[in-house]
Amino acid sequence: MKPSPYQVEILTIGNEIITGLVADTNSGVITRRLDNLGIPVTRHVSVGDDEAAITEALKQALARVDCVILTGGLGPTHDDITKKVLCRFFDSGLVTNNEVKSRIDIIFQSRGRETPQASYIQAEVPEKAAILYNTQGTAPGLLFEINGKRIYSLPGVPLEAEHLLETYVVPHLETLGAVKVKHRILKTTGIPESALWEEIGPVAPFEEHVKVASLPSLLGVRIRFTATGKNLKETTAKLDAAEKLLRQKIDHHIFAIDDETLEGNIGKLLVKNNWTLAVAESCTGGLIGHRLTNISGSSAYFLEGAVTYSNEAKQMRLGVDPAWIEAHGAVSEEVATVMAEGIRQKSGSDFGLAVTGIAGPTGGTPSKPVGLTYIAVTGTRGTYCEKFRFHQDRVRNKERAAQAALNLLRLYLLDES
Amino acid sequence: MKPSPYQVEILTIGNEIITGLVADTNSGVITRRLDNLGIPVTRHVSVGDDEAAITEALKQALARVDCVILTGGLGPTHDDITKKVLCRFFDSGLVTNNEVKSRIDIIFQSRGRETPQASYIQAEVPEKAAILYNTQGTAPGLLFEINGKRIYSLPGVPLEAEHLLETYVVPHLETLGAVKVKHRILKTTGIPESALWEEIGPVAPFEEHVKVASLPSLLGVRIRFTATGKNLKETTAKLDAAEKLLRQKIDHHIFAIDDETLEGNIGKLLVKNNWTLAVAESCTGGLIGHRLTNISGSSAYFLEGAVTYSNEAKQMRLGVDPAWIEAHGAVSEEVATVMAEGIRQKSGSDFGLAVTGIAGPTGGTPSKPVGLTYIAVTGTRGTYCEKFRFHQDRVRNKERAAQAALNLLRLYLLDES
Repeated sequence: MKPSPYQVEILTIGNEIITGLVADTNSGVITRRLDNLGIPVTRHVSVGDDEAAITEALKQALARVDCVILTGGLGPTHDDITKKVLCRFFDSGLVTNNEVKSRIDIIFQSRGRETPQASYIQAEVPEKAAILYNTQGTAPGLLFEINGKRIYSLPGVPLEAEHLLETYVVPHLETLGAVKVKHRILKTTGIPESALWEEIGPVAPFEEHVKVASLPSLLGVRIRFTATGKNLKETTAKLDAAEKLLRQKIDHHIFAIDDETLEGNIGKLLVKNNWTLAVAESCTGGLIGHRLTNISGSSAYFLEGAVTYSNEAKQMRLGVDPAWIEAHGAVSEEVATVMAEGIRQKSGSDFGLAVTGIAGPTGGTPSKPVGLTYIAVTGTRGTYCEKFRFHQDRVRNKERAAQAALNLLRLYLLDES
Repeated sequence: MKPSPYQVEILTIGNEIITGLVADTNSGVITRRLDNLGIPVTRHVSVGDDEAAITEALKQALARVDCVILTGGLGPTHDDITKKVLCRFFDSGLVTNNEVKSRIDIIFQSRGRETPQASYIQAEVPEKAAILYNTQGTAPGLLFEINGKRIYSLPGVPLEAEHLLETYVVPHLETLGAVKVKHRILKTTGIPESALWEEIGPVAPFEEHVKVASLPSLLGVRIRFTATGKNLKETTAKLDAAEKLLRQKIDHHIFAIDDETLEGNIGKLLVKNNWTLAVAESCTGGLIGHRLTNISGSSAYFLEGAVTYSNEAKQMRLGVDPAWIEAHGAVSEEVATVMAEGIRQKSGSDFGLAVTGIAGPTGGTPSKPVGLTYIAVTGTRGTYCEKFRFHQDRVRNKERAAQAALNLLRLYLLDES
């Protein structure tokens, strides 16, 4: 499948990448964006801040593809050498760019600071490059053209790389993409990959329309459909047909499509019905509240969260009877139930969600092992509580518990509406 | 600098990587681990689930280095082709491995499920490979040897890749590393990179001992020292000397070293002094509680968090007078102060921490713009409140606010002890 003759490679530069200090997130962001334009990225390569390695990798990439996007090594410190290497590669001198200089001043002024002298080095730019003005940071991006091929050099800071990608790279590349490839991602949770496929059945019916990929992660399995066609209408029709087939099999496991999130779709359900929510968290420690409030507009429905880590807080904030904790243990169906009902009653919300569990690595017993978690949801139809057992480390157990809790809430709200 | 003749490349396989659906975190984790052993990783390459691309990349890597670590493409679904490609590459047939088969059953049994038939395909392994038994998932890793070079193939799921790395790859490679390279990372926050370097001054005094790199991120600037030497004692002495120099300049900006975290070091301070903490969060929505409770043992000092998103919750949970909110606004020094004092008093904790701000993108006004945030800390020495202005999107503003709040708490606790 070769949807476009135009191909791109990404070259990431930085000792911090190649020594593993920083994960390269830029390559994924850039690739995803270009993929949406129908422009395939065919390779990611990462090398250190090393002139020979950068030069060799750039030469090889230019021999293979039409466009190379470099990220990293444009900072103001002594270990950032990308600009210097590109000058040598393209036989270019440096000139002062006053527009960049005044933009650097504006950035520091807006933060109430004097421009440090070291930052002005960013205003020295290769005379043979077009400048990609950066409003998010002090390092401008660069664009070189040679034999009809383009070389973009972007800063390594993700926010700045994304900004210049959107402002300069995407507007050019979208004129070149065939826009014949479209993806759709159906996100599921609460069921392992192999069990999910047993429910879905053979992949053949889907492959009449689309290519299918299955992508497991800690928080669920994503199913990705890829459709190719002559135009957007044709690819969309294929994706719709495949999605319809899938929903006949596993509709209730699907919590979101594409860029949608679980917490975002919960928000939509709450807003649509004019419902409010409050949460009581023990082992998740605030993660559920954090995820819910990542959604812009969540103040319309999220009233409050009580992170009741101590037993006393469970008593004072949620009205959980200490004798009840004594009898059943803080990690129990009984306590989860009272926590959910307690936060609903104290906050006056329509729905209450509560989690109590043992995140680990300590605190487990033979009868209550690490990973044991109870999640309760309450509303007008009474309280539903479910027991889970997670098998990861502390942080991952928290993440899985938060995901399971939000999914349980989603299913409860769907039943209600 | 060539600290060891033994070199490794990492080859990541997966359409999900090369189309940008999933970020490649494995390469960073593996590289970091090997770097600690003194084994340099010299290149990361990512290609799709494509036999020709995998074969070519593997051949090229084997021509350059002593060991290639592959990740990805070992799953049970039809788009996972790594095992098949390796069989062809090494001219190997498949055999059923009963040990793998029974381990797959054990994994499903421990989760209370029947083994799905599709999972048994994982027990078919190349006869020419040594098996890396995987307790975290159903796909075993593989090890091929050819002409004295090693090819490891690990599953793409990060937890499983890390598990097999630690169990099989590290024990072998650590016998080969020269252990002549050591890094130390000093983590700072609350000061931009260029301003930090103005405080530090010229890099030359440090370079007498170590190589210096500066790594900015959303939550602060990390300074990394790299020392080389004949043995651990020599490299440690060089790192100590450089750290001492740095601390003379910017000690109070350094919140953690190497794998330490801000929340972990706050925990140590609290434990050491037998102090307790409670937090009141508005715009951060629970993120501070989440970070504090990521630390094992945090239940010893973290009593509770109140995520008071609504004004009513601020009033009911923290005793913030509605007239006070009316007069000063929910995002104000006055309200942050009362929130911190309120949670301390209600919970009976030694210290109270509170955040109120406008995460955005909506809710800003000319006098109270998006990103405006007040953070207050209180304890026996009274309440300290500081105003911040963040310039990112909603989620990043939350992350920066949580980081600033924890750092303010750290400084308050240090002054106290």
